[in-house]
Amino acid sequence: MMAKVVTRIERADSAVIDGLGAAGVATVHEAQGRTGLLASHMRPIFPGARIAGSAVTISAPPGDNWMVHVAIEQLRDGDILVLAPTSPCEDGYFGDLLATSAMARGCRGLVIDAGVRDVRDLTGMGFPVWSRTVFAQGTVKATLGSVNVPIVCAGASIRPGDVIVADDDGVCVVPRADAAAVLAQAQAREANEEAKRQRLRAGELGLDIYDMRGKLAAMGLRYE
Amino acid sequence: MMAKVVTRIERADSAVIDGLGAAGVATVHEAQGRTGLLASHMRPIFPGARIAGSAVTISAPPGDNWMVHVAIEQLRDGDILVLAPTSPCEDGYFGDLLATSAMARGCRGLVIDAGVRDVRDLTGMGFPVWSRTVFAQGTVKATLGSVNVPIVCAGASIRPGDVIVADDDGVCVVPRADAAAVLAQAQAREANEEAKRQRLRAGELGLDIYDMRGKLAAMGLRYE
Amino acid sequence: MMAKVVTRIERADSAVIDGLGAAGVATVHEAQGRTGLLASHMRPIFPGARIAGSAVTISAPPGDNWMVHVAIEQLRDGDILVLAPTSPCEDGYFGDLLATSAMARGCRGLVIDAGVRDVRDLTGMGFPVWSRTVFAQGTVKATLGSVNVPIVCAGASIRPGDVIVADDDGVCVVPRADAAAVLAQAQAREANEEAKRQRLRAGELGLDIYDMRGKLAAMGLRYE
Amino acid sequence: MMAKVVTRIERADSAVIDGLGAAGVATVHEAQGRTGLLASHMRPIFPGARIAGSAVTISAPPGDNWMVHVAIEQLRDGDILVLAPTSPCEDGYFGDLLATSAMARGCRGLVIDAGVRDVRDLTGMGFPVWSRTVFAQGTVKATLGSVNVPIVCAGASIRPGDVIVADDDGVCVVPRADAAAVLAQAQAREANEEAKRQRLRAGELGLDIYDMRGKLAAMGLRYE
Amino acid sequence: MMAKVVTRIERADSAVIDGLGAAGVATVHEAQGRTGLLASHMRPIFPGARIAGSAVTISAPPGDNWMVHVAIEQLRDGDILVLAPTSPCEDGYFGDLLATSAMARGCRGLVIDAGVRDVRDLTGMGFPVWSRTVFAQGTVKATLGSVNVPIVCAGASIRPGDVIVADDDGVCVVPRADAAAVLAQAQAREANEEAKRQRLRAGELGLDIYDMRGKLAAMGLRYE
Amino acid sequence: MMAKVVTRIERADSAVIDGLGAAGVATVHEAQGRTGLLASHMRPIFPGARIAGSAVTISAPPGDNWMVHVAIEQLRDGDILVLAPTSPCEDGYFGDLLATSAMARGCRGLVIDAGVRDVRDLTGMGFPVWSRTVFAQGTVKATLGSVNVPIVCAGASIRPGDVIVADDDGVCVVPRADAAAVLAQAQAREANEEAKRQRLRAGELGLDIYDMRGKLAAMGLRYE
Repeated sequence: MMAKVVTRIERADSAVIDGLGAAGVATVHEAQGRTGLLASHMRPIFPGARIAGSAVTISAPPGDNWMVHVAIEQLRDGDILVLAPTSPCEDGYFGDLLATSAMARGCRGLVIDAGVRDVRDLTGMGFPVWSRTVFAQGTVKATLGSVNVPIVCAGASIRPGDVIVADDDGVCVVPRADAAAVLAQAQAREANEEAKRQRLRAGELGLDIYDMRGKLAAMGLRYE
Repeated sequence: MMAKVVTRIERADSAVIDGLGAAGVATVHEAQGRTGLLASHMRPIFPGARIAGSAVTISAPPGDNWMVHVAIEQLRDGDILVLAPTSPCEDGYFGDLLATSAMARGCRGLVIDAGVRDVRDLTGMGFPVWSRTVFAQGTVKATLGSVNVPIVCAGASIRPGDVIVADDDGVCVVPRADAAAVLAQAQAREANEEAKRQRLRAGELGLDIYDMRGKLAAMGLRYE
Repeated sequence: MMAKVVTRIERADSAVIDGLGAAGVATVHEAQGRTGLLASHMRPIFPGARIAGSAVTISAPPGDNWMVHVAIEQLRDGDILVLAPTSPCEDGYFGDLLATSAMARGCRGLVIDAGVRDVRDLTGMGFPVWSRTVFAQGTVKATLGSVNVPIVCAGASIRPGDVIVADDDGVCVVPRADAAAVLAQAQAREANEEAKRQRLRAGELGLDIYDMRGKLAAMGLRYE
Repeated sequence: MMAKVVTRIERADSAVIDGLGAAGVATVHEAQGRTGLLASHMRPIFPGARIAGSAVTISAPPGDNWMVHVAIEQLRDGDILVLAPTSPCEDGYFGDLLATSAMARGCRGLVIDAGVRDVRDLTGMGFPVWSRTVFAQGTVKATLGSVNVPIVCAGASIRPGDVIVADDDGVCVVPRADAAAVLAQAQAREANEEAKRQRLRAGELGLDIYDMRGKLAAMGLRYE
Repeated sequence: MMAKVVTRIERADSAVIDGLGAAGVATVHEAQGRTGLLASHMRPIFPGARIAGSAVTISAPPGDNWMVHVAIEQLRDGDILVLAPTSPCEDGYFGDLLATSAMARGCRGLVIDAGVRDVRDLTGMGFPVWSRTVFAQGTVKATLGSVNVPIVCAGASIRPGDVIVADDDGVCVVPRADAAAVLAQAQAREANEEAKRQRLRAGELGLDIYDMRGKLAAMGLRYE
Repeated sequence: MMAKVVTRIERADSAVIDGLGAAGVATVHEAQGRTGLLASHMRPIFPGARIAGSAVTISAPPGDNWMVHVAIEQLRDGDILVLAPTSPCEDGYFGDLLATSAMARGCRGLVIDAGVRDVRDLTGMGFPVWSRTVFAQGTVKATLGSVNVPIVCAGASIRPGDVIVADDDGVCVVPRADAAAVLAQAQAREANEEAKRQRLRAGELGLDIYDMRGKLAAMGLRYE
């Protein structure tokens, strides 16, 4: 694959991005038709972080973090770094120095289908990371990769500028062009859920709220 | 398998259940002859929760959470939902709305050999879950399963009404009929352990307290 | 393998050990040429612990923790227990009673490529453990193993008296004879990093600080 | 758990057992309502074996194969050994000597949620094994287990005397009392499938044979 | 996601497809710049199969094989079915009846990031499958998916009509538009390799053929 | 770690090596006190191979096979290449060209805790490989590693010149200095086993041959 850096990428509207972040991963995933989730092995290094931002993507060789330096130059305020190794790797591509640099450029966090290190420092800095693993293994700077090209990260197809939403439930990607429509769906869903939440809290059953009893019986569910 | 819901299940005495919860997973597991543990991949979504309750079991198809709604109607105060998918699945069968409904019925928590979502909300609500993974993947309501039938969950055989004990060490099941006897054993074990703890804290060695030196030597252990 | 206990082992200088602990896993790993890490599945039972100490090693059969008792007698103030099962095992070899005993001997923590239990109690006691898993499964005392022999633990070769460094990033081993030299390298690295951190925080790019642009271009990286 | 050997177990009719073996795993699994499969990690050590027999069950400690010797005495002609370790284990509990002994007792094969060794010899002897892994790790004879008690093996609940069916697709268990009824269902299914196979081979589509087009359209499937 | 079936897809030239199949997975992967591999867990159900064909893609819910029936209607001679579940699943979506139907439509094989069953029959029929696992678990026909939409299968992005190459080394995808160019590269690579093979067979070293000694020395490799 | 190549290594006596190969992995593992096995994920690419030879070790970066070329120059007739990546990696470091070169130097096979490719060709050439996985992913030649240094490969400590034994059961390492003694033990074990095999084949039970009944009863085994 030709190594390249795409310097101009489109981003979604910042208010839309922030709205998706407020909605959170589960709601956004539902709002876009149950698509966009990264695999469940992508876990946050500390609980409680909730972010959304535009993907600056990195395709990097196993054990080589050179392209992270290249990608940081491409960051704008509100972006999220998203790294997929070209083959499975657990190495610690990213630590506190790179986080310092990324934060200085306005980066909101890192999503990496590989390892991360210095997690105590990253936690102290409030720089959130969703990763495959925590591993201190050092990397080299010897082989090129690409920045801002389409990647598959943890099973999800991601294009530069797509919206990344990440929280304690994991990571979800929203195609840039769909972001506003998905946000509208997400907000509609949230409004709808709040009413249900009240009824459920009061003791009503989903069986009744969603009118399931008839269909269950028709399909043959038997009570003994 | 015929889809069915068993509406009447026997439960253990509530004082016994609470006693088992106070004893905790490791002690209860030992007290019943080192049996009853669910596999180690069953981890809590937040630290510090300790619960015990009667199992309301769910056998559900992969990616289909319809039976959770059915099961919630069967909950009584002090119960725990226990879900095993009929084949391996990571999907997020359960989130904050279902937790709201389950809590309204007195449910103490969820044990699920699959995924869970909305973990930030669940944590805020204080609703504990032990799961295979955290994953926001949505599920459908299309295929029947069963409620309150015997299941195998994370490698452990569980019958409806069995006592579930769960804490930071994982999850253990106690057959309902054995619950009182196991509690007695657990309490005896705890009393015994406290005396040992004092001696160990004072610097005595297990080698001496348990009189192991002779047996070790007889088996051929050599000191160099 | 002949079962044996080696009672006299060499240890590194305590100031060197403490210095390595202060440097932390990632820095020490880099300082010794990117070697010494245990596999990434070795995770702490609670966040924030940072320790260093001399390895008292245990080679134990699967599901048998007898040798832990034997090893505790060999502990000196500042040591760390390191257990590798002779075949893959998740059982809970270690809990609060053994931790009480080990702490009474000055032990700083446990590194175990198997399971641990009573993690709530261990957390309360402030006794840190890095383990493959948390699992309450009880163990027997029926078969001998060895103490203070060379082991392979989670993919790393460890000799008794080697320095173990463990923190939120995982676990690293430093050969005893190299400890002072590695500490010197680690401290040099830290000094060097602080200067870089300041520049990165101010917005300079790694591309410039490390003078990477020319080499990237020479290798063919293309900007679009 | 009290260590015990149950010497008298009920077995299904031998003609029924052989009929289930001829039907094979996939058909039997379907015939009993899509239940009974052991987990997919249970793989044969050589291709082409197809067996059915009555389960002689073994619950054994990790790394301890003593109970295999005990179980072999309980074998009758046509039986299958089924071993579940009491905690996860990969050790090689079984090799060519035990297979020689088991074959001398009429044993048709082994199902083991752990390791097996001497697979070249076992293949030469035509003794089939379905196992979690192949691993030469030796085991001890130090701790008791039980024979012919209910076990959970690779996620399936198995009682002594249940019918085990195993082939290249894996392993399925049929409760002894259901064996004849399941066989009848399996044979009905096979008869039904043969007619479909002919039509499919001739180029007819499942969409038409099963009359799916209307339902797909009603659910909203769109052709572009 | 809207459920849909795209009935018209572009395919690569059949001679190009066959040429890619003859080149094999490793060569094709190298020829397109070390891209396109599906994850290593995708293994053939029998050794020796080598195929190439145009992808007819399936996005299917976990445990639901309805869309396979829909996809078979879209097959043309020389096509390969490629199925990705919408969340991780091991169920046996495909067996001998579906293979009979697919073969009747000229299908060359199946690539499925899930389970397959009836592998003995499939082997006998000579119908090759690359799958995540072998598992007999039956599936339902209750929820829609899509056919001939872009998917991510085992970590690789695949569009309908892309060329799939599969052999004992695994599975590789070539974007349709690149197929001819990749074939040319693959054939050039093969020609080049044959000359090297002769020299290596005669005992020449890669160190000399590729003129590596100088660069190794310059980088600091030391011989002792 | 300083990159280096050790050009002079000691090897065990060739007759001893061949004797160990004839004894096989399980017997050799037992003969040296149940030690020396590589992890069970190390599987042969084709069944039936049985080899023994002297280890020429390779420590290589993830995704970089440069050192394989360097190692091939160090091979002598009867050697086995043993490669451990410095961090977990599945890439295909080795294929038919390297095998051609290695065979020209008398190499008997490859043991690699990573991936291998061209397995169809390797099978045709009769060049056996035990690997973590089969994966066609190409590697670079950019970063140094070392040859003939001590490594940990798949959990086993291996020094250059140690004897590697590999067959369908996996891989075992015998320290060079112990090779003759281990062979003697292995041959004694085999002689002993043959007598037992005869008795077992004739229907005698291990319970009687090994005189286990008394000890089982003394430990409390109960027959029902």
